Amino acid sequence: MSLHLGNASGKPSYSFLGPVGTFTELALKQVAGAKSAKARAVDSVAEALDDIAAGRSTRAIIPVENSIEGGVSATLDALATTSDIRIYGEYLVPVNFNLYARKGTKLADVKVIATHPTAYPQCRGWLAANLPGAKHLPATSTAAAAAGLLENNLADAAIAAVTAGDHYDLAVLAKNIGDNKHAQTRFIQVGLPGALPKPTGADKTSVIVELPTDRPGTLLEMLEQFAARGVNLTRIESRPIGDRLGRYRFNIDAEGHVLDDAVGEALTGLHRFSPKVVFLGSYPRADKVQTKPNGNNSNKDFAAGDAWLKHIRSGR
Amino acid sequence: MSLHLGNASGKPSYSFLGPVGTFTELALKQVAGAKSAKARAVDSVAEALDDIAAGRSTRAIIPVENSIEGGVSATLDALATTSDIRIYGEYLVPVNFNLYARKGTKLADVKVIATHPTAYPQCRGWLAANLPGAKHLPATSTAAAAAGLLENNLADAAIAAVTAGDHYDLAVLAKNIGDNKHAQTRFIQVGLPGALPKPTGADKTSVIVELPTDRPGTLLEMLEQFAARGVNLTRIESRPIGDRLGRYRFNIDAEGHVLDDAVGEALTGLHRFSPKVVFLGSYPRADKVQTKPNGNNSNKDFAAGDAWLKHIRSGR
Amino acid sequence: MSLHLGNASGKPSYSFLGPVGTFTELALKQVAGAKSAKARAVDSVAEALDDIAAGRSTRAIIPVENSIEGGVSATLDALATTSDIRIYGEYLVPVNFNLYARKGTKLADVKVIATHPTAYPQCRGWLAANLPGAKHLPATSTAAAAAGLLENNLADAAIAAVTAGDHYDLAVLAKNIGDNKHAQTRFIQVGLPGALPKPTGADKTSVIVELPTDRPGTLLEMLEQFAARGVNLTRIESRPIGDRLGRYRFNIDAEGHVLDDAVGEALTGLHRFSPKVVFLGSYPRADKVQTKPNGNNSNKDFAAGDAWLKHIRSGR
Amino acid sequence: MSLHLGNASGKPSYSFLGPVGTFTELALKQVAGAKSAKARAVDSVAEALDDIAAGRSTRAIIPVENSIEGGVSATLDALATTSDIRIYGEYLVPVNFNLYARKGTKLADVKVIATHPTAYPQCRGWLAANLPGAKHLPATSTAAAAAGLLENNLADAAIAAVTAGDHYDLAVLAKNIGDNKHAQTRFIQVGLPGALPKPTGADKTSVIVELPTDRPGTLLEMLEQFAARGVNLTRIESRPIGDRLGRYRFNIDAEGHVLDDAVGEALTGLHRFSPKVVFLGSYPRADKVQTKPNGNNSNKDFAAGDAWLKHIRSGR
Repeated sequence: MSLHLGNASGKPSYSFLGPVGTFTELALKQVAGAKSAKARAVDSVAEALDDIAAGRSTRAIIPVENSIEGGVSATLDALATTSDIRIYGEYLVPVNFNLYARKGTKLADVKVIATHPTAYPQCRGWLAANLPGAKHLPATSTAAAAAGLLENNLADAAIAAVTAGDHYDLAVLAKNIGDNKHAQTRFIQVGLPGALPKPTGADKTSVIVELPTDRPGTLLEMLEQFAARGVNLTRIESRPIGDRLGRYRFNIDAEGHVLDDAVGEALTGLHRFSPKVVFLGSYPRADKVQTKPNGNNSNKDFAAGDAWLKHIRSGR
Repeated sequence: MSLHLGNASGKPSYSFLGPVGTFTELALKQVAGAKSAKARAVDSVAEALDDIAAGRSTRAIIPVENSIEGGVSATLDALATTSDIRIYGEYLVPVNFNLYARKGTKLADVKVIATHPTAYPQCRGWLAANLPGAKHLPATSTAAAAAGLLENNLADAAIAAVTAGDHYDLAVLAKNIGDNKHAQTRFIQVGLPGALPKPTGADKTSVIVELPTDRPGTLLEMLEQFAARGVNLTRIESRPIGDRLGRYRFNIDAEGHVLDDAVGEALTGLHRFSPKVVFLGSYPRADKVQTKPNGNNSNKDFAAGDAWLKHIRSGR
Repeated sequence: MSLHLGNASGKPSYSFLGPVGTFTELALKQVAGAKSAKARAVDSVAEALDDIAAGRSTRAIIPVENSIEGGVSATLDALATTSDIRIYGEYLVPVNFNLYARKGTKLADVKVIATHPTAYPQCRGWLAANLPGAKHLPATSTAAAAAGLLENNLADAAIAAVTAGDHYDLAVLAKNIGDNKHAQTRFIQVGLPGALPKPTGADKTSVIVELPTDRPGTLLEMLEQFAARGVNLTRIESRPIGDRLGRYRFNIDAEGHVLDDAVGEALTGLHRFSPKVVFLGSYPRADKVQTKPNGNNSNKDFAAGDAWLKHIRSGR
Repeated sequence: MSLHLGNASGKPSYSFLGPVGTFTELALKQVAGAKSAKARAVDSVAEALDDIAAGRSTRAIIPVENSIEGGVSATLDALATTSDIRIYGEYLVPVNFNLYARKGTKLADVKVIATHPTAYPQCRGWLAANLPGAKHLPATSTAAAAAGLLENNLADAAIAAVTAGDHYDLAVLAKNIGDNKHAQTRFIQVGLPGALPKPTGADKTSVIVELPTDRPGTLLEMLEQFAARGVNLTRIESRPIGDRLGRYRFNIDAEGHVLDDAVGEALTGLHRFSPKVVFLGSYPRADKVQTKPNGNNSNKDFAAGDAWLKHIRSGR
């Protein structure tokens, strides 16, 4: 399904975890230049990545952290196993839930509530206070739950994103019913390998690393590859590799850009250390936090070290 | 809902992530003494833990790793935020999926397949090869999907655990359709704090640890608390704390028992280091792997060190 | 040889690296209560330690760091191989050299200068500027060099400590001729094991540690035994063990007192880690610098950790 | 003083810690091509280095570890403070002491024994057993002690190296009287910067490193610069910097050659980390022990990592 038809080849086009009316659509709206581009809503992270591989879209917008739409694990696992995917940007979306119903429905009438299984427990507090006896009908997305209200009578209301109201002719029974008012979801823009986003001084570099062996201490050794170059981590998250219990890969976000000397050298260290390192990309941070210097690890410091090495190797 | 009514007070009783016919029921069957005990199927991990807190059950069986029934994140987050919960055992269950249908249904007739959203993608390969055009109808559990076949016609078939066949009068259209033949799920038995399981030499100790600050290197420092006492980790998994992006807690399984000197001292080190450590328990490993010695860290080595310290402190 | 005869048994008596007139005598003068005590000048660190073992003295004053009198290596090696020696205090002595001669000698007459081989190069700058052609006559100590002037004519002048002038009837040709005006020597007071000096909050603990094997990383592991308990080092100095090249022991001074929980636990960690740990003592720092807190490692923090461990082990 | 006059300019010439008849002369004899070269015996390590700086010799042979001739500290400190010195080779010399006397002297006649202050205590055991009442007369070197026997009657015997017998017309009263029969001294060949010795696969790289600050943990961080590149250390020895107590520089010998990628990168890491790194050279090990691989840190592994980095940076 297309939100809008891009009118020219060569222009970027976007697949996003749909349907329309979900939080991912709010992330898409943050992408510079996406407004007039072709956008394609898909059913799963896997389908979004398939679109990229097949050339149906040039970029995909998918959730990666604290997702409401079911994204996190699916995304992390897909990134680890799909070859040649790069991240080009990240976007933070506040998570606000509304309770929608067909026009004319009163709160007291609500017995069955449709929504995605991960959204439902995030409204547990409000539901216990306001609709203590209601039942949950699982839906494949919050937007599908909203859309379903207009298609059948299986549910009386739907919990969905604020953007759902733009797409479906529904009434809002209650606003902002999520228990955590500060919740947000992080989305990423991915595509095939291509020119790296330019370093901005407030960048992130994402990699996936497998540990070489089961012996103790290898996680410590892996972290030392970053520490020895003064590179800070903003996130480290383990995920089972999936072939058997007890084997993990680590999703890591580091401060800085792969074109920075410190990050580049840390990555070559990982490459030697690990049986498998996947480079996911370097891109501007959504929060625009500048990389703090950490010891003498600026490009200038690296250049001075390299010049010194060249000198002592020359025998002069 | 009760599988079986225990006939005596004082006896253990079990809540488990239901409904009957799920993988959790297979874990329950591994629990020594659970056969004749009262067992209560519940809808969520949260409900199982509520049962423990309220005294409706003495123990709960819940999935913790590589879950099919939607357990992992829910369990890890519930363990981190529920006070006074202890793990008493762990159980490994092979993950085998069957395709069930109402009697008389042929494979060629299957257009809509009900199952839990996490089970569906695990059968993607078999479905693409055998039922390429089929649609997914999400259900709250694999067992609910199977049960639904007998209640309405929304779906033509259901993907469910082998144990589902014991509970519902359904035909098996295909056996063992999961893409990963070695998949398994790890379950834990939890309850209120009580006498610790005795050390067996093949034990695990589980804790949840928050890092003290955002400064780089704190993860390394936390790992050193284990390394300095020769304690190996079998699992480390980060989970967002949830108050805002960028803050994590670490779910850690370490080799050994809290009654071992090495583990005990490592835990006091964590207690000083971290603003929050949750002790989840020490219990026999499901895989019965003995703790390998790692340097001089046996109880005997600790006793020798303590005797030496006492001697030098005495001024003799 | 006795400086002064103590008049009572039970009183402390001191051996010190002599002869009288050396820097060690200045250290002895800093020892509380040593003024009226029996003091015995000896020829070597080994002789001083022999006096302790044989009961000829209760305490010995010997140089340990940056020594002028030839002490460092001899002391470090003697401490490593003598059993049952404890340090009870440390003393800092500024190193000031004077040039002494027989009365009537003029600077221009000085052709041969007697002094200890380690003192001579410390005055190289002054000598090059003022006595460029002079020759060095080695002596067993700076004081012996001064004394020798009165006994024979082998040398025209002697480089010796300012205290030498108190003992020998000599003229001062030049004052403070050392090249480094901030030089000082650290001395220690040692004796047989006995009641430990009380913790003052500004203490040092000295140990000697052998590494367990030649494999790389063991030095890192040893340092982690201190780091994991938040114990800072003020000195680490390697010395060859002496049985063959390539094997070292480490002389370590750590902040804090062995009666502090953090230091005590770090020492038991060393005891398990190392094939040989020698405890040399805990004593007040000469510079009176208070131990800075380093993470949560106060006795109070340790007590809280121990109480928590007791609680979780109890099964309540 | 010259042992032998080289007859051609352009040929190497050697200063060595003299006089003739010391252990250093035995080291000189191990130097390939030194046999027919001009050799100059000097009085001190400082003088040897002055010869290099002034062009009086092209190379110097000086003791560096476990020295008998008084070398270690002097050498280490001179290397740290002299600019533009490089090590070109190392040599191991067994330490065997003989007791020399004027012809006709009997063992029973020996009352005064001349030798270098560091040699005397190394024969303590033999002296206690065989000459219990003898006195020590310090000499500036073991060879000077031997030579002195022929010049005056201050001593009855001299403890000196076996090579002393080649130069002085003396009788051997006792052979091999050192307490440690396995003692050896390590010597180095130094010169001005020039073409590096070629990597042999059994090389050492020597550096001197100052720690950046007094804060705890900097030694650990320094060691991580080696560990992160899989470079093993064969020696680490601290020496006071000398400006005040409590500041140290570290003399480090690492396995491998500065032309090895792993060593080169470790050195640039040190250069960024430390306020002062002195590169002393890369040269073949005297013991010819091949560098053992330590993780994936061969030049091939480094090249693979660099190629990968180039690839991911290219945006392809």
